[in-house]
Amino acid sequence: MGNYRIAVLPGDGIGKEVTKGAVEVLKAIETRFGHHFEFAYGWIGGAAVDQKGTPLPEETLALCRKSDAVLLGAVGGPKWDQHPPHLRPEKGLLQIRKEMNLFANLRPVKFYDSLTDSSPLKQEVIQGVDFVIVRELTGGLYFGKPSGRMVENGEEKAVDTLLYKKEEIKRIVKVAFELARKRKKKVTSVDKANVLASSRMWREIAEEVAQEFPDVTLEHMLVDNAAMQLIRSPQQFDVVVTENMFGDILSDEASMLTGSLGMLPSASLSASGPSLYEPIHGSAPDIAGQNKANPIATILSAAMMLRLSFGLSKEAEAVEKAVQQVLAAGLRTADIAQKGQRAVSTDEMVNEIKATILDHQTISHIMAVYA
Amino acid sequence: MGNYRIAVLPGDGIGKEVTKGAVEVLKAIETRFGHHFEFAYGWIGGAAVDQKGTPLPEETLALCRKSDAVLLGAVGGPKWDQHPPHLRPEKGLLQIRKEMNLFANLRPVKFYDSLTDSSPLKQEVIQGVDFVIVRELTGGLYFGKPSGRMVENGEEKAVDTLLYKKEEIKRIVKVAFELARKRKKKVTSVDKANVLASSRMWREIAEEVAQEFPDVTLEHMLVDNAAMQLIRSPQQFDVVVTENMFGDILSDEASMLTGSLGMLPSASLSASGPSLYEPIHGSAPDIAGQNKANPIATILSAAMMLRLSFGLSKEAEAVEKAVQQVLAAGLRTADIAQKGQRAVSTDEMVNEIKATILDHQTISHIMAVYA
Ligand SMILES: [Mg+2]
Ligand SMILES: [Mg+2]
Repeated sequence: MGNYRIAVLPGDGIGKEVTKGAVEVLKAIETRFGHHFEFAYGWIGGAAVDQKGTPLPEETLALCRKSDAVLLGAVGGPKWDQHPPHLRPEKGLLQIRKEMNLFANLRPVKFYDSLTDSSPLKQEVIQGVDFVIVRELTGGLYFGKPSGRMVENGEEKAVDTLLYKKEEIKRIVKVAFELARKRKKKVTSVDKANVLASSRMWREIAEEVAQEFPDVTLEHMLVDNAAMQLIRSPQQFDVVVTENMFGDILSDEASMLTGSLGMLPSASLSASGPSLYEPIHGSAPDIAGQNKANPIATILSAAMMLRLSFGLSKEAEAVEKAVQQVLAAGLRTADIAQKGQRAVSTDEMVNEIKATILDHQTISHIMAVYA
Repeated sequence: MGNYRIAVLPGDGIGKEVTKGAVEVLKAIETRFGHHFEFAYGWIGGAAVDQKGTPLPEETLALCRKSDAVLLGAVGGPKWDQHPPHLRPEKGLLQIRKEMNLFANLRPVKFYDSLTDSSPLKQEVIQGVDFVIVRELTGGLYFGKPSGRMVENGEEKAVDTLLYKKEEIKRIVKVAFELARKRKKKVTSVDKANVLASSRMWREIAEEVAQEFPDVTLEHMLVDNAAMQLIRSPQQFDVVVTENMFGDILSDEASMLTGSLGMLPSASLSASGPSLYEPIHGSAPDIAGQNKANPIATILSAAMMLRLSFGLSKEAEAVEKAVQQVLAAGLRTADIAQKGQRAVSTDEMVNEIKATILDHQTISHIMAVYA
């Protein structure tokens, strides 16, 4: 019976609906397992710009810092597209990652048998796929200095810098090994060691860290080959770890494998404080407020929170199993429904998942009585 | 009736067999169209290390420079894997690209109806795919300085540099627009302009170049989205242009779409001299010398040479059509044969393609007589 404070940042568009759904599912977990979750809400993104004049208000950050974990919806929308950079909703996301020191982005890619039709890949290729991409999120080419424009001898140039400190690589590779230890015990470290100096250091450090995990297998893969292998035989992967930019490209590629962005959760782990959980999809302004959005990615993000931030594995499994059951029973929101299949609303999907979680309790209870 | 000097660099492993096949097909084109091709052979890769003590002998480079185009097989093999870096076969490839100023790498990805079974993607996704990735090959992150290791305040670091001059971007984007003009008139420029300074310059220059091609549509796509779209709806692309590293990752991803590396040609265009044509596959030491290799990628590379270096479009089409016909007739080398299907040898495949090219001549000739 634990007490946990959860900061909920719904954000914009469908962010509101999907976080609402995930909170309801967490309440079902409260009921079934007897925990206490305290939910506190904060503004972020376009909604924060409208209410507070900035995409990440100081009070939101303060709220997150005193919480045990953060659940985020999505940010952005056409309303703020013409704003100057510092008033863009996306800026709020970048800032919160930086301010909370979220250095490790975990993106599980899991195939659901019941969703074969949604994948662009043939069934025999996608069948059984279940891996996690661990992306370094606060270093590398997206943050290195110098980054800018210059004129040299009358020639215009632009430069960006891929920089990593040894410690930055070490801590992200460790996250991957620790994760793999609880899974299929295989880490694929992706780099471009045949060309890049930073990748050669990455590879050395991966080898070093591997010494501490003799029960986990380490393999190295070049990033261009990884981009191929993700399509050709995605079943080979367990935990993939890579630097920021490679991770950006590969995790988005991987997210298409199952054909359903609305299903994919993520976790961003902090080096120093609470971690953040969010669906990988955006705010989908075109369907916002219509009770059509798929809440599963956010619900599975909440399950990751239960497992990774609170150590509640049984509770996380209960959520994941409920999701699997409603899918197997044929429930589909519009994004994953096939032609001719009836699509359920966000609320209907959430209610079924909740009921599945709670039913189980009833059944267990009844079974206990008869035992 | 033209005269053309072609430097042939077979290299290692199956490189020898596939270039031999392509040369025979070019000879069939000579016969049918009345051109004269002069073939001169040079060492490269492991074979050059064995014969001349270096993976790219000066005499090979001299031969290439006085030729109208270069046809390359593949390099590498376990025999040279333990050699020091400057005696590695791959070094020969990197050197020839640099010495010949090969700045634009063209990788067509074309789906053959008759090969649906080979693709990991569902038929409705891969059907009709026909695009070219244009990758900048001599700049960006793989070449920028500084690149190396350092210790600062007792901390180990590694750095690489993504640097582009305006002129380098301009010339590659122009290649893409010129290519698109002869195709479906659409250029997709891929960058990471929301994060990288070099990408923002890239995007500006793409817009600038687009002014000179009012008949061609330009769209911009972020690299992580491009990695998704290649799997999700590859039919949308015509010509994709991008910087070196993004191109490395995306072109290898794209090469898996059709499921048959043995089918994919490439061209590397020079800023100043002859261009180079080669299959994208490697030297496949495991099947070398067994008359099993798929020669089609090299034969299609020869077709690109006919079109791009010699301006012989009709001749290029004759080769491409012959390839399509033998595939449609059911001919398959082992790499593209399905279970239970008989695989033909390299020689058989080459002979059928030759015969198809020459038969056509006979038929045309007969038809002319009866006209
Ligand atoms: Mg991304
Ligand atoms: Mg590559």
